[in-house]
Amino acid sequence: MSNTVTFLSDFGLSGGNVAACELVMTRLAPSARILHLDHHIAPGDVRAGARVLARLAPLGPVAVHLAVIDPGVGSDRLAVALHTKRGDFLVGPDNGLLLAAAQALGGVSTAWSLDAERVRRQAELGDSPFGARTFDGRDLFSPAAALLTGELPGSLLGEPVDFKELKSTEADRVEWVNERLATEVVEIDRFGNVALAAPFPDLEERGLLATGNLEVRTAGGLGDCRTARRVRSFHELLTGELGVLSDSWGRVALVMNAEPADEFLGVEEGVFLTLDRGARKPPPLPEDEEVHRNQGFPQEWE
Amino acid sequence: MSNTVTFLSDFGLSGGNVAACELVMTRLAPSARILHLDHHIAPGDVRAGARVLARLAPLGPVAVHLAVIDPGVGSDRLAVALHTKRGDFLVGPDNGLLLAAAQALGGVSTAWSLDAERVRRQAELGDSPFGARTFDGRDLFSPAAALLTGELPGSLLGEPVDFKELKSTEADRVEWVNERLATEVVEIDRFGNVALAAPFPDLEERGLLATGNLEVRTAGGLGDCRTARRVRSFHELLTGELGVLSDSWGRVALVMNAEPADEFLGVEEGVFLTLDRGARKPPPLPEDEEVHRNQGFPQEWE
Amino acid sequence: MSNTVTFLSDFGLSGGNVAACELVMTRLAPSARILHLDHHIAPGDVRAGARVLARLAPLGPVAVHLAVIDPGVGSDRLAVALHTKRGDFLVGPDNGLLLAAAQALGGVSTAWSLDAERVRRQAELGDSPFGARTFDGRDLFSPAAALLTGELPGSLLGEPVDFKELKSTEADRVEWVNERLATEVVEIDRFGNVALAAPFPDLEERGLLATGNLEVRTAGGLGDCRTARRVRSFHELLTGELGVLSDSWGRVALVMNAEPADEFLGVEEGVFLTLDRGARKPPPLPEDEEVHRNQGFPQEWE
Repeated sequence: MSNTVTFLSDFGLSGGNVAACELVMTRLAPSARILHLDHHIAPGDVRAGARVLARLAPLGPVAVHLAVIDPGVGSDRLAVALHTKRGDFLVGPDNGLLLAAAQALGGVSTAWSLDAERVRRQAELGDSPFGARTFDGRDLFSPAAALLTGELPGSLLGEPVDFKELKSTEADRVEWVNERLATEVVEIDRFGNVALAAPFPDLEERGLLATGNLEVRTAGGLGDCRTARRVRSFHELLTGELGVLSDSWGRVALVMNAEPADEFLGVEEGVFLTLDRGARKPPPLPEDEEVHRNQGFPQEWE
Repeated sequence: MSNTVTFLSDFGLSGGNVAACELVMTRLAPSARILHLDHHIAPGDVRAGARVLARLAPLGPVAVHLAVIDPGVGSDRLAVALHTKRGDFLVGPDNGLLLAAAQALGGVSTAWSLDAERVRRQAELGDSPFGARTFDGRDLFSPAAALLTGELPGSLLGEPVDFKELKSTEADRVEWVNERLATEVVEIDRFGNVALAAPFPDLEERGLLATGNLEVRTAGGLGDCRTARRVRSFHELLTGELGVLSDSWGRVALVMNAEPADEFLGVEEGVFLTLDRGARKPPPLPEDEEVHRNQGFPQEWE
Repeated sequence: MSNTVTFLSDFGLSGGNVAACELVMTRLAPSARILHLDHHIAPGDVRAGARVLARLAPLGPVAVHLAVIDPGVGSDRLAVALHTKRGDFLVGPDNGLLLAAAQALGGVSTAWSLDAERVRRQAELGDSPFGARTFDGRDLFSPAAALLTGELPGSLLGEPVDFKELKSTEADRVEWVNERLATEVVEIDRFGNVALAAPFPDLEERGLLATGNLEVRTAGGLGDCRTARRVRSFHELLTGELGVLSDSWGRVALVMNAEPADEFLGVEEGVFLTLDRGARKPPPLPEDEEVHRNQGFPQEWE
């Protein structure tokens, strides 16, 4: 078993909902070490949560991974615990949040449907405070996660379920039409880097990078056309120049050097872009000095 | 004694003020485990801090609870440590921040006024860095909290005070006029749920929910009238429909299903609403498809 | 050696980049205790990061300090580990981020250039995931920091470098012209307090506070003139009155009592102010009741 618990949610850090869960776990499993993954997932965005959980979970030690993005709380959606082949547990609602991470941890070996009454009895907790039906994070998932850091068999928390019956999320949208790739903006970070759903090796296999340049069209292919140069890191780009690289998670990303590429492209999360092979020699960058000067970034970046 | 320290403040997570306190405590009490409750309380909002602290503290193990929302820092307001009947300590300014939590932890058994000089001597610290008089969180409360995780008697940190003399905050505003309830919006979370000061059982006892519907008026009772249906969780609500439920902390809350109720009602924290018993059969929901479609939420919510 | 790791970055808390580093460190050094300093430094703002790191690091125990603000990632900038005379390690990019902290910890005793291949071999890690060249925080600095919490000599991670060759950041701008001080706004906190680059004792030594009042001009000395009264803490100020004090870090700060001084002055981080000795008797405060009433702050502040 593992005394590490990772925790991901869409609770935000205001109002103490994350702390409520952490307090419950700390009381039930005093030696557990709780490691916060991300609590700023957009409210109810199960797909985004699943993506972040799947890329983070394999980086750390074998752990109990608590994940709560739960728009269906209080309905008849299942609450589940999954045991992975690497030895991790994943605990959360059955809405697809956990499956990509389970895959990244070697696949599911056993799955249980959590029974709230059994969990609270095992944890020696009384009824849920205030009879609440809106905070399974605190009242069901956290106690279950805390119990699973110990030697407790998952079967004491609920009945086994066929993990092939578990809900999954909608797949990321990556579509090839001949040599043109249509793909979704899945994440924009605070540097303005634009991550796409497509894995970077796909671009190379399909020859889209043969010229060293890519043509990027926004608005599902109907918007402006921009040229992105293939680079390996930010510093290779000139000011005002758009680049394409394999980002830290192996995805296609459109980036600039110390400038926000999302603003340059005028895109946000969820929109579609198309990518085509570009000309060997891209059009010259604007020469205007005003454009070349970095604006709004500290001098060290220049 | 307890080696768990919980920490709540209005410092925010930028600039390192929270970390400054945590570093001081870690140096003085290397085995303490520090658990962050909420550092995003609105600047100086002692009432909001008191509310969050009181609902969180009882969820965890017996602990030292450090709380710093301190607009009076540097004045002659007292700095205090309270010992609760459950065995917890509460450490912070005497401005009402700690009292509701002390009550929730069984009441105060002893209270001390913290003497900055004694605390720093016990902690083997020199004078406050830079002679600062603006950061008792770092210079007084954190050393005191760290010392109280050990076997140190509170009396070594200052003189006993009569806890009946401690300052309290203004009570939450809940007023009944005949069968009409006037109450304050005390919290809006990132999902747009609107929590009111009134405890949910009050509604039931007074028969306000007898028809299953509530009439909600904004602007202290002079604003628009909306019908809220009594539900137990979000998923029971149709798109566009307002509900009333007992939230995770037992308060009356006005909510929607994957939509922000605060925007629907046009309310913010601190305003007053009135609640009346509604008609048995509420008016029909708008039929317009535009209204029924969720806007701005991911597809999984639908 | 120390099992405490402090961690500062410009990653923000969304998207899991901080967690990625923490997971890697937790896997490699399971008993390390990771303490987060600040992850909201403005993207790429090495100077701001250096400032926060230098003031926080000395408050805690001897530790490994991981700091990642790294606009040059993937370029030929060095990655370094510095051993300080106090016994701490500092790990991060060689762009000036670490030097002020090293100074605050007694100065550098030895410095090494980190060799990514050696670090990953010592950590028994394979190649960087996805061959990434954009996330040395996860792939190089975190493994190095984790290794340095153990007994591992720095020399196993790379070659010694002459620390006099390390890059530094641009100094804070503090200029005296006769008895007038021109200085930069280096930080505005969430209370609206305006911290300047100048250390407070300089004001006193140069006699700028002899009358008890200061004249503050914005826009590099060309803007409006405001009078700031010398105080020791916020509560001494009347509503609507501007004060000057020595802040928690010993800097000159322009402040108000429960009101945002940055809005009153119309300034933001990075702009210049001039400070002159004020008249002994400042002009009367506005008498208008509207001005004296606090606006937008909770009642407890009044």
